[in-house]
Amino acid sequence: MSLKDYQKQVDEWISQYKDGYWTPLEILAHLTEEIGELAREINHRYGKKTKKDSETENTIEAEIADIIFVLICLANRENIDLDKELQKHMKEKEYGRDANRWERK
Amino acid sequence: MSLKDYQKQVDEWISQYKDGYWTPLEILAHLTEEIGELAREINHRYGKKTKKDSETENTIEAEIADIIFVLICLANRENIDLDKELQKHMKEKEYGRDANRWERK
Amino acid sequence: MSLKDYQKQVDEWISQYKDGYWTPLEILAHLTEEIGELAREINHRYGKKTKKDSETENTIEAEIADIIFVLICLANRENIDLDKELQKHMKEKEYGRDANRWERK
Amino acid sequence: MSLKDYQKQVDEWISQYKDGYWTPLEILAHLTEEIGELAREINHRYGKKTKKDSETENTIEAEIADIIFVLICLANRENIDLDKELQKHMKEKEYGRDANRWERK
Repeated sequence: MSLKDYQKQVDEWISQYKDGYWTPLEILAHLTEEIGELAREINHRYGKKTKKDSETENTIEAEIADIIFVLICLANRENIDLDKELQKHMKEKEYGRDANRWERK
Repeated sequence: MSLKDYQKQVDEWISQYKDGYWTPLEILAHLTEEIGELAREINHRYGKKTKKDSETENTIEAEIADIIFVLICLANRENIDLDKELQKHMKEKEYGRDANRWERK
Repeated sequence: MSLKDYQKQVDEWISQYKDGYWTPLEILAHLTEEIGELAREINHRYGKKTKKDSETENTIEAEIADIIFVLICLANRENIDLDKELQKHMKEKEYGRDANRWERK
Repeated sequence: MSLKDYQKQVDEWISQYKDGYWTPLEILAHLTEEIGELAREINHRYGKKTKKDSETENTIEAEIADIIFVLICLANRENIDLDKELQKHMKEKEYGRDANRWERK
């Protein structure tokens, strides 16, 4: 599935509800919350943090999907074509500023 | 382009460099930095925050692309199939726990 | 109590444990998690986000205290005198760059 | 200086300006931005991230002070007594849930 398809699917999902899209500052707060959940999982798996019993078991993969979902909401809210932006980004990585930022093999 | 294609393209890009993938805690720190840049742009456009002259002009769309790029790096590092995870996520949204969380139109 | 006293108290608390201070990247991941919890509470109180039943009830004040605690850990780990830094920061706000950034009453 | 004194000093500073305190969602977005700047410095010093030439040189101590400043703004906005909350937090750490979470020396 392409990013465009996901953007469409998310839009159909949100369009069923009365609230519709949240404001950008609300979506950002939600994104911050989701990054926090990813941080918890990563620190749990790769850092020293142990879990409290009350903490639900989640996975890094599920948290990444949560974050992408929120980003798609924000992109839809702002009329952003994610495919176009990502392709532009990849081109910059390959030929632009970052192309010689790290040592090649 | 599908998410699988992007994951492959990012992997080819990173494979050129000596450092290769960073550790998950380093990628997370980078992700936190990028979320911060998105927050700045959103607060600038929708909140009260003015910009200092020294702050470079970026856009919400470019910052979202930056974040997705970092998430793809993390997914690759962890052998995560983003397409599979996002489809699972969408199914949960539609039929699972969240399906009746908000009021329908 | 002064910030110096809190820094001392946190140091005494951490010194009891075998692990001691985490690495800066681990502390940062923990900080990101705590910011996420604050974001959840703020979005719950001021945004549109409703809570899932499984989510524990916390408060904005408790989350802010959590965050300051983590910042004190990081400051101790890095030998930073928070009182000195905050006073420098306040002076810059009052007489420096930011003094004329917003419209006065 | 005590936290109460800092809260008072920040309040006096903000009271000079027309805008006054931002909304909690705006303050949160600003906090997310500042955490991102701290993440950049930490990843720069302890991770693999190199700096772009365009990136200004900051320090971990200055970024921590920035974050505490924003937290004080939020606390003032919400009528939170930080000293009281931190003391409660320290007591929980010492005698409560977390007292036996990690292995003692």
